[in-house]
Amino acid sequence: MSRIVYVNGAYVPEAEATISVFDRGLLFADGVYEVTAVIGGKLLDFAAHMARLRRSLRELALPSPMEDDAILAIHRELVARNALDLGHVYLMVTRGAADRDFAFPPEGTKPSLVLFTQARAAIETPEATRGLKVATVPDLRWARRDIKTVQLLYPSMAKMEARSRGADDAWMVEDGFVTEGTSNNAYIVTQEGTIVTRSLSNAILHGITRAAVLRTAAEHGVRVEERAFTVDEAKGAREAFITSAGAFVTPVVAIDDVPVGTGMPGELTKRMRANYLEEALRTAI
Amino acid sequence: MSRIVYVNGAYVPEAEATISVFDRGLLFADGVYEVTAVIGGKLLDFAAHMARLRRSLRELALPSPMEDDAILAIHRELVARNALDLGHVYLMVTRGAADRDFAFPPEGTKPSLVLFTQARAAIETPEATRGLKVATVPDLRWARRDIKTVQLLYPSMAKMEARSRGADDAWMVEDGFVTEGTSNNAYIVTQEGTIVTRSLSNAILHGITRAAVLRTAAEHGVRVEERAFTVDEAKGAREAFITSAGAFVTPVVAIDDVPVGTGMPGELTKRMRANYLEEALRTAI
Repeated sequence: MSRIVYVNGAYVPEAEATISVFDRGLLFADGVYEVTAVIGGKLLDFAAHMARLRRSLRELALPSPMEDDAILAIHRELVARNALDLGHVYLMVTRGAADRDFAFPPEGTKPSLVLFTQARAAIETPEATRGLKVATVPDLRWARRDIKTVQLLYPSMAKMEARSRGADDAWMVEDGFVTEGTSNNAYIVTQEGTIVTRSLSNAILHGITRAAVLRTAAEHGVRVEERAFTVDEAKGAREAFITSAGAFVTPVVAIDDVPVGTGMPGELTKRMRANYLEEALRTAI
Repeated sequence: MSRIVYVNGAYVPEAEATISVFDRGLLFADGVYEVTAVIGGKLLDFAAHMARLRRSLRELALPSPMEDDAILAIHRELVARNALDLGHVYLMVTRGAADRDFAFPPEGTKPSLVLFTQARAAIETPEATRGLKVATVPDLRWARRDIKTVQLLYPSMAKMEARSRGADDAWMVEDGFVTEGTSNNAYIVTQEGTIVTRSLSNAILHGITRAAVLRTAAEHGVRVEERAFTVDEAKGAREAFITSAGAFVTPVVAIDDVPVGTGMPGELTKRMRANYLEEALRTAI
């Protein structure tokens, strides 16, 4: 089935969804993005995604293509036109098309806005049920990972490296400490049942699902420590998991071939997944 | 005047030069590029640019779109169709269009190939004649700067930061040592008349013009040291300059508002520029 895609004001079949080769998103990776999960045709954590988008735009002095309400309307139109029940909506804003120059284009250059949907088969994916194996790789990314830019080549390479080593995904490591996964935040559960995840800084993405999960944990009386952890600490943890808009809360059952805890998805992880989904669905729009 | 642009097999007017929004160059910055200078309608250092392109493709396991001869033919066709006398040809290869996934797309996915020309007014630009002022900024880029990827957002931001501080361009600094400019390699000339430039590693781009200039220096008996230098050493240097395919050899006359040497383009720099251009024109094709 051909999707309907939104590109700069038009809804077009995916085969016709094109952008200028002079777009700065293509020539300079001068763009930011968001991915909003859809369950039952409803958008999860939409307001938080928009707030993060605004922050990314601000950090890069990138013009806003339109107000949140108008962006929400496009999300809903795409969900409807593509009869999307389960999956997500990808959104990208770039600094627009201009003749190639490292300097930003003249004021008034229109930012580009692209949105498309991706369907997924089920919430209870094999990854969620049996857990992920991760492989650790050095974190070679740029220093502003808090801005959600399309400079995703290294995470993409890291994912392929992990697969070549028989794992599902990579955890990136800097100065001995885990930063995050290729497209998700990383967590462990200590033997005492405390959730540990790296605190917010320029070193990691400020995950929307991360914020929601930490809120949910607090509401359920689960202890959380926001601090960096080493690969060794993770290997000796009781449980491990990742969070992202696409994966919600997904167990990690092995790190560099060392089983985490029992080598099976952890009980707290499963509870956090259920709690997160319940809360996200309750507030979905 | 509307340029003719090459996109995936077709020569099209620039307004029609588009690429799929699913192209991984746009979604993941999963692409590499080259810029080849054109003088008198001839290509400078073409073989060296192709050799570096091959290396970039290899490092990223990115499929080759076609052989060097065919790529040369496109360069010549674009130069002819756009009556390009002076300027350059930009070339980009991406991993092609595929539904969005951090994992590389299936084998057989066609890489995208885009080329376009940019004209320039003159060889003796104001920058070349009066020299550049540079501002230093921390080098926040990823760790594989030897691969010429389109992840150019930070250099672009650095250029804007430099301009906001009254400079023409930025020099990036890591651990106290200059790495390179935003789109060029950085050099100083010591009080003893030795050219100093950072040695090749993953920390900098392996400049084609850099290699040619070092060859030219050797032929003319100019001493060269390949080693890192600090910002303070650069401020106390006799001369400074940058090299790139676009700028050839261009003097740097101030660093963070401190004049370099006399604050005027240096004599050795001017000689290196003339020598480089002479050699490059002699071997242009």
